Amino acid sequence: MKIEAVDVAHYHVPLPVPLSDSTHGIITHFDLVVVHIRDTDGADGFGYTYTVGAGGDAIRSLCENDLKPTLIGADADAIEAIWQKNWWHLHYVGRGGAVSFAMAAIDVALWDLKAKRAKLPLYRFLGGDDPAVSAYVGGVDLQFPTDKLIAQASEAIAGGIRAIKMKVGRARLAEDIERVAAMRAHIGPDITLMADANMIWRMDEAIRAARALATYDLFWIEEPTIPEDVAGHTRIVRDGGLPVATGENFHSIHEFARFIEAEAVSFPEPDAATLGGVTPWLKVAHLAEANNLPVTTHGIHDLHVHLLAAVPNSSYLEIHGFSLNRFLEEPLRIEEGKAHAPDRPGHGILLDFRRLTEHRAG
Amino acid sequence: MKIEAVDVAHYHVPLPVPLSDSTHGIITHFDLVVVHIRDTDGADGFGYTYTVGAGGDAIRSLCENDLKPTLIGADADAIEAIWQKNWWHLHYVGRGGAVSFAMAAIDVALWDLKAKRAKLPLYRFLGGDDPAVSAYVGGVDLQFPTDKLIAQASEAIAGGIRAIKMKVGRARLAEDIERVAAMRAHIGPDITLMADANMIWRMDEAIRAARALATYDLFWIEEPTIPEDVAGHTRIVRDGGLPVATGENFHSIHEFARFIEAEAVSFPEPDAATLGGVTPWLKVAHLAEANNLPVTTHGIHDLHVHLLAAVPNSSYLEIHGFSLNRFLEEPLRIEEGKAHAPDRPGHGILLDFRRLTEHRAG
Repeated sequence: MKIEAVDVAHYHVPLPVPLSDSTHGIITHFDLVVVHIRDTDGADGFGYTYTVGAGGDAIRSLCENDLKPTLIGADADAIEAIWQKNWWHLHYVGRGGAVSFAMAAIDVALWDLKAKRAKLPLYRFLGGDDPAVSAYVGGVDLQFPTDKLIAQASEAIAGGIRAIKMKVGRARLAEDIERVAAMRAHIGPDITLMADANMIWRMDEAIRAARALATYDLFWIEEPTIPEDVAGHTRIVRDGGLPVATGENFHSIHEFARFIEAEAVSFPEPDAATLGGVTPWLKVAHLAEANNLPVTTHGIHDLHVHLLAAVPNSSYLEIHGFSLNRFLEEPLRIEEGKAHAPDRPGHGILLDFRRLTEHRAG
Repeated sequence: MKIEAVDVAHYHVPLPVPLSDSTHGIITHFDLVVVHIRDTDGADGFGYTYTVGAGGDAIRSLCENDLKPTLIGADADAIEAIWQKNWWHLHYVGRGGAVSFAMAAIDVALWDLKAKRAKLPLYRFLGGDDPAVSAYVGGVDLQFPTDKLIAQASEAIAGGIRAIKMKVGRARLAEDIERVAAMRAHIGPDITLMADANMIWRMDEAIRAARALATYDLFWIEEPTIPEDVAGHTRIVRDGGLPVATGENFHSIHEFARFIEAEAVSFPEPDAATLGGVTPWLKVAHLAEANNLPVTTHGIHDLHVHLLAAVPNSSYLEIHGFSLNRFLEEPLRIEEGKAHAPDRPGHGILLDFRRLTEHRAG
């Protein structure tokens, strides 16, 4: 079936509550780029990506000006071939970065379309059978006072969550220790707890922090330092004494291959929206499986729930702070620590675009 | 001195003669993004980057929508600080790719402005004393018939060139061998000859090709395979028997560090326009120097002549096929194999923007 139409839209979406981490400061909005693809039968898929702070219009431009022309008339089923063609079409300004975000929006739309045509929810189209996936809430809360942090955790637990991630990386390590200790004391031993440093530490600082925080039974420490420092991550995994999650800032399968080869990551954390879509996400999951590693996710949980439900080595799904719930007809169902992929065909994300209209930026 | 104004323009520039290589096919145009930065004294610098085939509008958008707002009011002298701020501002969609191109246009403009204020040509502002740099002509000529290839070489030699690069990577290795043999026979033993595969080979094919081509006294073989394959390059350097140049597709200093550490490159080839500007270009040159390696360049020779003239480990300057000569009041002077950096303040590139106007795209 040929692709007949591609529509691209860019939204600048305000957050109900401003968020904060060690890298991005206070976050009040995120940018959402949505792509609709229609085939000559009139079937329709939609894909999306997002960014924070900068680059939204550039992603829209890549979709509209560079990728859309290559798609019109292409075989909508040839998702791998389209992905490869786009990678090379944008290779000179690509190999990651903004291009991976633009390719993601396209690729997600094509998978949605294909699963819809097969009348299967995406997780079953990809070979899975159980829609339930363990989920954690990722707090973006570095500047929250401890009482607000605790209140947020209580709210999540009341909502059916059994795992929580909090931000670390405050000016003094003692503050991080105090906040993590308070959180662990509050949630007790049965709730899983992760901590996310958003790349703020040098390697030596990360090792020191990991050793100090290990006593609070952390499930992982996330993004301890910059994604360019492969050898540093190897050291942090080896000497820090905590499992390490990273990958939200990786924009190609090759970055994951390098980290896995170097034993620099315990929980590879691909984000389909920043990696180029479902196509490379699955490859990273398989690469992890082949190396006896789990796979976790970052961001766009409404999509990722399907991907984790489809692979044998899935770890936790992140319920991310950039929520689309205000615009969804039916938010992701979470019960007793598990998120449930919807059984509608495709990814089944029912975005109400009328409600998004007022936030349209391009 | 504070930055008062930033102007961004995007041009879609036709080539006088269509070019071809193994990755990009037939090339009829290139995209040029130009940034003018003016300080509160009225001093002015201009910078530029370029791309081929796709991404020009996205680079313009990154400059206009994401970088310009961070620049207005900033201290124009604080080039390193501005670079770091921009890297982190665009980190989520960056770490290379289109963002590195956009940052390059800004960074080049800031260096131009700063050298102009010091009333020094850029190569002297950067500490060099000799404006003459060995230069080669990079042919983009994979689909040229052999006679046209030879004629092009003759023309270059008549124009004062003593080193030539040709494209390889045709469907059969025998064709490459025949074309390289014909070129070497035509130019004789005293003209330097390089060959550029534009990433077309797998590692094993590259080793086989390098061994077969070594007999024609190649100065280097360039981009034998994809830039993600560090280990493959190490093998090609070790087992191919020819020096390897690569780097035009590297978009961060970290990629160069990784290749140099792995002994995967003989001639690091940073392109200031695709790496983020003069600031990271100099860091790569120094990294190469510290590892007893030369540095060469790719693209925008009108700027790179200054950078090679400023560092102690410079190898050849590429005179690139995407020429701006039609729009320059005074093209780069090349005599007896050497290009000469102009002695005007700043980079001294006198672009006639009136002549470019008809190619304006955004």
